[in-house]
Amino acid sequence: MSQAISSGSGRSGPAPESSCSGSVSSPGKTDYGNGRPCRICRISPEEAGLYDGISEMIVVTGEKKPNAAPIGIIYRNGRLFLRLFYGSATCRNLESEDYFTGCVTTDPFIFAESCYGNLGPEYFEQNYYDIGRGLLQAPSLRSCDADRITLFRCLSRKRSEIALLIDIEPVVTIVTNSRRGMPFNRGFSALIEACVDLTRFRLSGDHEIIQRLVRYQGIVRRCGRPEDKEAFLLIRRKMLEYSENRESEKKTDIRENEA
Amino acid sequence: MSQAISSGSGRSGPAPESSCSGSVSSPGKTDYGNGRPCRICRISPEEAGLYDGISEMIVVTGEKKPNAAPIGIIYRNGRLFLRLFYGSATCRNLESEDYFTGCVTTDPFIFAESCYGNLGPEYFEQNYYDIGRGLLQAPSLRSCDADRITLFRCLSRKRSEIALLIDIEPVVTIVTNSRRGMPFNRGFSALIEACVDLTRFRLSGDHEIIQRLVRYQGIVRRCGRPEDKEAFLLIRRKMLEYSENRESEKKTDIRENEA
Repeated sequence: MSQAISSGSGRSGPAPESSCSGSVSSPGKTDYGNGRPCRICRISPEEAGLYDGISEMIVVTGEKKPNAAPIGIIYRNGRLFLRLFYGSATCRNLESEDYFTGCVTTDPFIFAESCYGNLGPEYFEQNYYDIGRGLLQAPSLRSCDADRITLFRCLSRKRSEIALLIDIEPVVTIVTNSRRGMPFNRGFSALIEACVDLTRFRLSGDHEIIQRLVRYQGIVRRCGRPEDKEAFLLIRRKMLEYSENRESEKKTDIRENEA
Repeated sequence: MSQAISSGSGRSGPAPESSCSGSVSSPGKTDYGNGRPCRICRISPEEAGLYDGISEMIVVTGEKKPNAAPIGIIYRNGRLFLRLFYGSATCRNLESEDYFTGCVTTDPFIFAESCYGNLGPEYFEQNYYDIGRGLLQAPSLRSCDADRITLFRCLSRKRSEIALLIDIEPVVTIVTNSRRGMPFNRGFSALIEACVDLTRFRLSGDHEIIQRLVRYQGIVRRCGRPEDKEAFLLIRRKMLEYSENRESEKKTDIRENEA
């Protein structure tokens, strides 16, 4: 389960582009990764910009082949965790990988495209993080596309019937973009809601979701930035595709029952 | 229409707390305010964190008695403007005042309370802005509650049947809070949608809005920060109050028709 830490190994790299803004815990604390005493770098969720509730981030996993997915990082009663449905690439990767990055972005294309498929390799970069006992290499969104990149460590895993629950902690956080004091845009938030609903529609085919999409479309058209409008078209196209697939599956079922 | 500029007058103040991060236009340009040649301070919408689309801000008007309201600042095809429905305090104030502040905040109470009433005086502060030809005093949210405060100038007014359209330009912008790279929270965005719908419900009484509120409530409960949850209760209470008022008005109408 543990990931090789690259202090002096082949995975270590040049000067770190990231910095640890948090506290370093006392020497002698045992890292769950390999059991040997070491200094562990760790910051509080608040230092990583996380507050009670669910923070929507682009989670990047996959040491060999990076994968991005929009995931809500849950922070409730002092517990920070992920709830990953079985079958997703993020869930598969985090079954065996102990580190991942969570990226904050306002790029609607990244939300849309990572919602129904994976991003192309041009969206990712590999960074080296100083985790207190060497450098750790991990993929993330490119710094130019993210406002903040945080390296998280998986602490423990628990299986429910439908999802893998992973307790996590932030290790290093870097603010990569100085965009500050940006006003709220209802168009961007409608796009995020459409992404959530697209995932639900793929699983349930619930037609109420299509009605909501019509409403989101109105908000994106009125309030969204040009990029929100374009990204929304991708979501709408995908929703139509899922809908058509469901219809043709239904027809096949009916024909098979009639035969 | 023009507002007294306080260079040396009773409205001028101590050292300015705000700074102009934009360009100062060439001397000799005529200000629309009083017709005399002067240096005008002006910045681009992008410098004020505004991009194509609608940016939701807390607009503070009222030289004598500050008033706050959540307003969408519209930026479309290079034109920056407000669309204010007649009857609102913001509209009344900006019929005669030439300057106002637009504040960016993630405080859900400010959105909720300014949506159905006015904020108490403890929410406001008076700042002095260097507008290139003296200091201008204008009310805004307190710096500690806002991520960014921008002073806007009204350029021209146009009346439609239902709303006052005001072309505006940003003059000075100050980032007051260094909160950076904050992740998206669906709970906060559901609260903003509920604020928008509360205003609509007051005007239309459309029962579809109540159904939407039930949905927003679920999102706020699951994803929101503790403050989003508390602020949502205020919106829900107000929505019930409006709904009950409508019902009792209906009953009165029926009784009067029967009499």
